[in-house]
Amino acid sequence: MGKEVAAVKIAAATVKNFIAHVYLGYGFSETDSALIAETLTDADLRGITSHGIQRLAMYDRKIRAKAIIPYNKWTVVRHTKSSLLVDANHTMGQLVSAFTMDHVVSKAQRHGISVGVVRHSNHFGAAGYYARMAAKAGLIGIVATNTNPLLVPPRANQPFLGSNPLAFAFPTQNAPFVFDAATSTVSLGKIEVLLKNNQSIPGEWAVNGDRQTQTDPQTVLDELARSRRIGGILPLGGQREANANYKGFGNSLIVECLTGILAQGSISADLGHKNHDISHFFLALDPELFGDPQEIEASLSDMLDRIRHLAHSGANPIRVPGDREIQNIDCNLKNGVVIDQTTIDQANEIANRLGISDRLSGTPIKE
Amino acid sequence: MGKEVAAVKIAAATVKNFIAHVYLGYGFSETDSALIAETLTDADLRGITSHGIQRLAMYDRKIRAKAIIPYNKWTVVRHTKSSLLVDANHTMGQLVSAFTMDHVVSKAQRHGISVGVVRHSNHFGAAGYYARMAAKAGLIGIVATNTNPLLVPPRANQPFLGSNPLAFAFPTQNAPFVFDAATSTVSLGKIEVLLKNNQSIPGEWAVNGDRQTQTDPQTVLDELARSRRIGGILPLGGQREANANYKGFGNSLIVECLTGILAQGSISADLGHKNHDISHFFLALDPELFGDPQEIEASLSDMLDRIRHLAHSGANPIRVPGDREIQNIDCNLKNGVVIDQTTIDQANEIANRLGISDRLSGTPIKE
Repeated sequence: MGKEVAAVKIAAATVKNFIAHVYLGYGFSETDSALIAETLTDADLRGITSHGIQRLAMYDRKIRAKAIIPYNKWTVVRHTKSSLLVDANHTMGQLVSAFTMDHVVSKAQRHGISVGVVRHSNHFGAAGYYARMAAKAGLIGIVATNTNPLLVPPRANQPFLGSNPLAFAFPTQNAPFVFDAATSTVSLGKIEVLLKNNQSIPGEWAVNGDRQTQTDPQTVLDELARSRRIGGILPLGGQREANANYKGFGNSLIVECLTGILAQGSISADLGHKNHDISHFFLALDPELFGDPQEIEASLSDMLDRIRHLAHSGANPIRVPGDREIQNIDCNLKNGVVIDQTTIDQANEIANRLGISDRLSGTPIKE
Repeated sequence: MGKEVAAVKIAAATVKNFIAHVYLGYGFSETDSALIAETLTDADLRGITSHGIQRLAMYDRKIRAKAIIPYNKWTVVRHTKSSLLVDANHTMGQLVSAFTMDHVVSKAQRHGISVGVVRHSNHFGAAGYYARMAAKAGLIGIVATNTNPLLVPPRANQPFLGSNPLAFAFPTQNAPFVFDAATSTVSLGKIEVLLKNNQSIPGEWAVNGDRQTQTDPQTVLDELARSRRIGGILPLGGQREANANYKGFGNSLIVECLTGILAQGSISADLGHKNHDISHFFLALDPELFGDPQEIEASLSDMLDRIRHLAHSGANPIRVPGDREIQNIDCNLKNGVVIDQTTIDQANEIANRLGISDRLSGTPIKE
């Protein structure tokens, strides 16, 4: 493990404002810029560092390469009372995703269940953001996306599927229950965060082209580059079939079926360098189809509380998915969002290049 | 690893016929008995030994304990154009599940997407069976169920969630793509199969009450007994948080939300000994909402073929979920279904007790 690099704390409102100005600078509308800033700051507030402001640099590369085209508008290709297919027309993933989930939610509120798929899109940030849109409306939300290839199937020694995250949200009496995770052991963003912090990989996450476990983040990223594509990230379950790694592989395949295949976009294997054609999946389901929503929410809240209080060893409490995020929000709203210096430098370089006056700076928290 | 115990091969048609007679003997109708026999034989044909005829003994215990009541009929409690909630009234899980998925499929064919949930049910066999019902109709099928508690959440040292399998089926140009797996590392059925074969546990599957890895199947089963409930089966990802075991936990929680919580039945934690109140979830989605079904099926078939032909190390081919099952069907239809002697003895004891003349016997294949 290396030493963590310098980082600063900045008020979330300042970060959000900075990001919005950056996107205005690219030519996005005021509304669109505010939405992008909201989704990225929301991830940082929740401690999902991999999907927060550190993504500015990647989006910047894509906008400059015309993979993301700020002026483009998406089109609804097909729709029924309970479905829509959207062609994103290479706009920012966040914009077309919020649009689609909004419609999926409205349709589910009228007809009980609804589904939307999107093709020709880009990275949409954290999947949980859109699943929570459904939960805020009292609905169950399910969201998935394919991504650039990185997952090596069991026995293979080259990547084929994406990190292919799946997010699930269910309303409760308090904040919605949200589970949002890559179907690979980790997303590429987590490897990038380790690299920035000079840390090595702590678990059975990645292999080289001979399926030997890889612990250096830089090597993993280099070998996944399009020109090489040897080894990659392991499915959940790791190296061994005896540890059921074929299940992580299966979960990633399910997401690929619901996104690239169903939306008739590209599959993960064909994404990358010159092909930016990510597909998303959005579903909303109204619990009221089956019973009293308040009673259903109460029984979920009760179950989650029982899990938190199970007998356990060690001092650390048992957490359910989302607990750490909620804690992070409280802490980060009060103390500011933690951003590493590399991300700060990249963000300020972008602002400089776009000719906007904002610069990010904060209180140092580490040497 | 112990030595495998004696087993025999028997023609699938003979096995199916035997099972049907057993269920007629319990008092199920001819149609219902045939359906139960069909689902169990189908699992054995696919090599899903844990969910085939070896389940006769468990169902027999439940029928005798009046947890499964052959004469009961289920009722549809609520329904809309695209949904139904069914009270199984403690009948066999297979019967109410086939009924519900039939309706979900019809509704999805008319309205594009549909969902059904069931409460007060029993073990329904292999989830993939019902997901394939959707795929056979040209639809995507998603099926889940909760089960008796066995999964220990990360950091906990007692079981709370079930094996909570999730099955997904998508039509292709050939046999549908099916992924059907417990969201825990393994189902209890797999531990039982190891025990019958005198084998120890080969992977990071189970822990005792101190979260030490457990490799003896009998100890795992003893410790999971309702009177003890210490330790249990690990979530996919195993022992360590660094290997993302919280993701397997999250997947199992998703299934619990869609079954016990949404159907307003019992949650896994409260199932067992005196409480038989399993809940199921069924969803069907028509790909035609989004495009030409033939083209969508062709692109999935093409993707699966590309995965099978990825560069790999070692002599074993790369398989996608379902490949092994299809191979097993071909082999077992020709050579007969493999059944261990313990299961044969249990089945014949049941037949004897029910006063039916059938007895199972086959060609020995192991000493």
